Amino acid sequence: MRGAVMYAPGDVRTEERPDPRIIAPTDAIIRLTHSCVCGSDLWPWRGIDAVPQPMPMGHEYAGTVVEVGSAVSTVKPGQFVIGSFFASDNTCPICQAGYQTSCIHRELVGGAQAELLRVPLADGTLVATPETPSPDLIPSLLAASDVLGTGWFGAVAAEAGPGKTVAVVGDGAVGLLAVLAAKQLGAERIIAMSRHAPRQALAREFGATDVVEERGDEGVAKVKGLTGGLGAHSVVEAVGTADSMMQAIRATRPGGHVGYVGVSHGVELPGEELFFSHVHLHGGPAPVRRFLPDLIDRIWKREIDSGKVFDLELPLDQAVDGYRAMDERRAIKVLLRA
Amino acid sequence: MRGAVMYAPGDVRTEERPDPRIIAPTDAIIRLTHSCVCGSDLWPWRGIDAVPQPMPMGHEYAGTVVEVGSAVSTVKPGQFVIGSFFASDNTCPICQAGYQTSCIHRELVGGAQAELLRVPLADGTLVATPETPSPDLIPSLLAASDVLGTGWFGAVAAEAGPGKTVAVVGDGAVGLLAVLAAKQLGAERIIAMSRHAPRQALAREFGATDVVEERGDEGVAKVKGLTGGLGAHSVVEAVGTADSMMQAIRATRPGGHVGYVGVSHGVELPGEELFFSHVHLHGGPAPVRRFLPDLIDRIWKREIDSGKVFDLELPLDQAVDGYRAMDERRAIKVLLRA
Repeated sequence: MRGAVMYAPGDVRTEERPDPRIIAPTDAIIRLTHSCVCGSDLWPWRGIDAVPQPMPMGHEYAGTVVEVGSAVSTVKPGQFVIGSFFASDNTCPICQAGYQTSCIHRELVGGAQAELLRVPLADGTLVATPETPSPDLIPSLLAASDVLGTGWFGAVAAEAGPGKTVAVVGDGAVGLLAVLAAKQLGAERIIAMSRHAPRQALAREFGATDVVEERGDEGVAKVKGLTGGLGAHSVVEAVGTADSMMQAIRATRPGGHVGYVGVSHGVELPGEELFFSHVHLHGGPAPVRRFLPDLIDRIWKREIDSGKVFDLELPLDQAVDGYRAMDERRAIKVLLRA
Repeated sequence: MRGAVMYAPGDVRTEERPDPRIIAPTDAIIRLTHSCVCGSDLWPWRGIDAVPQPMPMGHEYAGTVVEVGSAVSTVKPGQFVIGSFFASDNTCPICQAGYQTSCIHRELVGGAQAELLRVPLADGTLVATPETPSPDLIPSLLAASDVLGTGWFGAVAAEAGPGKTVAVVGDGAVGLLAVLAAKQLGAERIIAMSRHAPRQALAREFGATDVVEERGDEGVAKVKGLTGGLGAHSVVEAVGTADSMMQAIRATRPGGHVGYVGVSHGVELPGEELFFSHVHLHGGPAPVRRFLPDLIDRIWKREIDSGKVFDLELPLDQAVDGYRAMDERRAIKVLLRA
């Protein structure tokens, strides 16, 4: 099969790789007609995360089961399924509490920018759609695998809901989908922090009522200006830098909630400022599995169109161009066609 | 009147000071028969916080109203009242949300290790007892002003409750009262982290089911050993150092809650570890006012005896000996008799 491999920062090659095979009896193999590039793939692309050896890329997936191990009972060949970047047993106490990405048996899923993918712990990880999806639903279902689930978790962690003003720091696919999530969760007012016109437009389409272009302290001041000087009730952090974290914390009112889902890079939180900020802080790798049944249902009913974050489609063979387009912010999110 | 003043680290003098007077029409003056020394008073005593000028000490208070300003309507002379270290209007949106210590009009109350005290924003700050309390209740009511309210907030912020295993880092008065709070809130199992026999005994009396003497990584391993390898559902941090914060975060299971109420000193939280820890983090200066009516009620009904944290009583004139005893951990908390 073909799959994308990162050899070094800026060096992604789509090449022939061995077909994945069932290793454990709990595995499944799925065929992917589409895959995609994640904002977090840009950390190694930019050299911020190390690339010690060639890495098969991609951790977002939705596709058709072609084979299952002998212990798999809940999904079967022919079904269309969606999973998350961490495989989980979905039965341990941590999974039961809704934190499947910290499952005691979790396994990172990798190599999804490819035609075939092995998914461990298939019973606990994969959720099947009611039927074979109409092709136009596939981008939205694929987005549910990570960026939608992650934005959703950010909004849930920030306790977005009725009567709340929610601000979102970050206008990548996750931030934009956090706007969509906040809207779906009933937030009264949604402030998208973005300075890119096409992203602002999508944010408004997803439910943003206000757009703030300023960043840092100026952005915080703008959010406070929009909230009677108090700050937002809920702020979603969807970048992962020290600046974005502090912007999120400072834009939140005392007693409010910060949901942070940007993968933290070089973040050191000042304890004393956090103490006096009085915010709630919650985040981490989104337990997408918790939300998948609900998200699939909303997509299936066409209540949400999370696939709109894909604004560039390329053949899998041109994956490298997708990385480039996202790195240069020419694309929000790139869909790869196998 | 007489009051304790800190001139420099290790130098506390009880001396004659001017009687406080009504300054704003929202003020009240209260007479204190008892006051006390707080663990947080040890930060400047030890030279960790600066003492740029002589500081009247003490921020915990319960006493009898002797005078009120013209705008005060909810308390009157003769009533016994309790307040918190931050005066609050109790009407702004932040107060209404239960975060009175971040009230938009908050004012720090200081100089309570004295015979008389001025309390700003009396209507929003002070809560009266049903009648003049029996003298044996005064220590418990005084504790409600800070250490009980702070321990209680720590337990609430950590979401202690039925079915939960709660660990408490710190065996000062706040930590011990967090144990009491966790018990009152219905926690199933309460792990006190303490290596001092008298404090362990009081922790058990307050409801601790287990005591862990180890600290740091060893303490974390012990808590995990007691919780099926997962960590506690809820951990209260009641010290305020980088070590205690990391001990609390690491002893909490993914998806669990850390309530931190130790005043943060030199704490820098590693963003990436926090991200992957999956914990909820909430804390800050305890909004004691939120809890005061309930706490007074529980004390009045003798359901809780928070005054037990006072294990040394001294005359106000010997306040300095109280600081010394607490600094050297010879006393958990010192009651000062005016």
